Amino acid sequence: MTEDRFFLPHVDRLAGYVPGEQPRDGGFTKLNTNENPYPPSPKVLEAIAGGLNDRLRLYPDPVGTAFRRVAAELHDVDPAMILVGNGSDDLLTILTRSFAGPGDVIAYPTPSYILYKTLAEIQGARAVEIPFHADWTLSTQSFAAARPRLAFIANPNSPSGTMLGMAALAEIAESLTCPLVVDEAYVNFAEADAVALVRSHRNVIISRSFSKGYSLAGLRLGYLIAQPDVVAGLIKVKDSYNADALSLLGGTAALLDQAHLATNRDRIIATRERLANEMRRRGYVVPASQANFVWCTGGPPAAPTYEALKARKILVRLMRYPGLPDGLRITVGTDAEVDRFLAELECDNP
Amino acid sequence: MTEDRFFLPHVDRLAGYVPGEQPRDGGFTKLNTNENPYPPSPKVLEAIAGGLNDRLRLYPDPVGTAFRRVAAELHDVDPAMILVGNGSDDLLTILTRSFAGPGDVIAYPTPSYILYKTLAEIQGARAVEIPFHADWTLSTQSFAAARPRLAFIANPNSPSGTMLGMAALAEIAESLTCPLVVDEAYVNFAEADAVALVRSHRNVIISRSFSKGYSLAGLRLGYLIAQPDVVAGLIKVKDSYNADALSLLGGTAALLDQAHLATNRDRIIATRERLANEMRRRGYVVPASQANFVWCTGGPPAAPTYEALKARKILVRLMRYPGLPDGLRITVGTDAEVDRFLAELECDNP
Repeated sequence: MTEDRFFLPHVDRLAGYVPGEQPRDGGFTKLNTNENPYPPSPKVLEAIAGGLNDRLRLYPDPVGTAFRRVAAELHDVDPAMILVGNGSDDLLTILTRSFAGPGDVIAYPTPSYILYKTLAEIQGARAVEIPFHADWTLSTQSFAAARPRLAFIANPNSPSGTMLGMAALAEIAESLTCPLVVDEAYVNFAEADAVALVRSHRNVIISRSFSKGYSLAGLRLGYLIAQPDVVAGLIKVKDSYNADALSLLGGTAALLDQAHLATNRDRIIATRERLANEMRRRGYVVPASQANFVWCTGGPPAAPTYEALKARKILVRLMRYPGLPDGLRITVGTDAEVDRFLAELECDNP
Repeated sequence: MTEDRFFLPHVDRLAGYVPGEQPRDGGFTKLNTNENPYPPSPKVLEAIAGGLNDRLRLYPDPVGTAFRRVAAELHDVDPAMILVGNGSDDLLTILTRSFAGPGDVIAYPTPSYILYKTLAEIQGARAVEIPFHADWTLSTQSFAAARPRLAFIANPNSPSGTMLGMAALAEIAESLTCPLVVDEAYVNFAEADAVALVRSHRNVIISRSFSKGYSLAGLRLGYLIAQPDVVAGLIKVKDSYNADALSLLGGTAALLDQAHLATNRDRIIATRERLANEMRRRGYVVPASQANFVWCTGGPPAAPTYEALKARKILVRLMRYPGLPDGLRITVGTDAEVDRFLAELECDNP
């Protein structure tokens, strides 16, 4: 009996999503996985500390009622339109399992979040990639023409940092007869969000993360916003207790401290603009980013630059998409981290 | 466009797993979801408190290296044989998605953990239920005859609390060409475990929970033990960061405090035996339990008893399995909680 007899054939063939490096030894300047360089709100830590008691022996609230109420108020939607997840990856998994079966089409733009392809593959679904135009817009017709059962659009997009306007998103939503998931993992650094579209278009679903804007990647918490009947259906598919008691406490406190979010966002946006301009001055092509990273192509070959930086304990993300030149996705760190990166980059590309 | 056009047909039809009630208002004696009545180890709370700092802005270790090492040492296996999950439900989900596709057979005993059926349904797989014999043993041949791609056995079983011996498990494992998942969520209250079988039978996979023995249901942490190549395959299917940083710290501390586990286990076992005997004295049929609950049938009709207890703020679990009489599954609480339950039961059944 061999392992390949155990795993489903399409799982066996799977390369698997490889997350960005998380070095265990210290000393690295980590500009590779879009973590927020600033600490989470002290109120988050206080809220979690307040939950460190005997009540941990009890199961958490399966739907996170208190969290739901606060998120609903923030977005001015009904609490029944909020679903919590163990990070937004959990929600993307639940969405895939709910809407796309083996052989069904899942459509998403390319280059974008590589996990969409992995989720399609695990499900045995067919991934159809819609190429971005050179100006990072998308053809509405290509989505509908793919006849998907599920569509993902990261907005802002990774690795480009660019955003589709709300009119373009609405047009795509209207062209589809399936759910359109707008993955707003990076929206806390952007000028707009698509919450209004959930109200006007019943096939629009928004997913949100605490990992980037709220500096809580370690906590694993996300949520989505969708019509109440869609949320009710997704609850049947999620694990019963997918969000733990401490994350729910911390996430609720994070949502309630919008001032902390705004302060860090403003700092990151200022640093982002400086980093983007510095990279452009060095000859890179850098699209205008609305996220906490910049996407750099067109400079010296990306792979040797990535390796040279890594040797100097600076991690950036080398991104390779079939048919496209390699690029470097650089997370916006603190000003000091960005200065260090720029200095080392000079050394590598004299 | 209607919702049923969005969801996959088999998801649409799904009733969904209904977890035991988690009342938000206080005052209930909760003997319904097998939570541990005693608090978690103070060392767990300390370890989590030690993680409440700026590092929460970083993603957790995707495979929980430190946790893995401690779990491997505890069970005397290689760290590559340990996989962490967001509760053991997450692991059962990953296993289902890895091994059983639409139309494939998933076999498990009945009556047992109702989630197995839900997982099969979400996956579009075919659930084949193998009835327990009257003495809570199983026919080996019925498993193999079902030609499953995946088999689950909860051991100790819920709701019965009974256990299959290791020889019987080995026989079933040998009869199967597919993975046999031994769900040891309740094993901390039992006299034996199946870890040795993972070493001797490469299709045996064990799943473990922190929710019961370790009093950490609120934390959502579980792990499984399997051959390294099986774990490597499952890692491709799990969400990248499925266990959060704080749970990993808490779970590691819990594993390291085996004395705390043993003290609570001994107390619960003593109370369990007393509760079982009291229920037998009242005319119920109560199989010998190796878990932290007792399964009571054959007394007065279960549903009215459940309702009457609930009205008096005592929650037990009314379990209904097709073709079987209703039963009450009563979690072993503290001695005081059990006394209160027994007193109220007298009132209800004069």
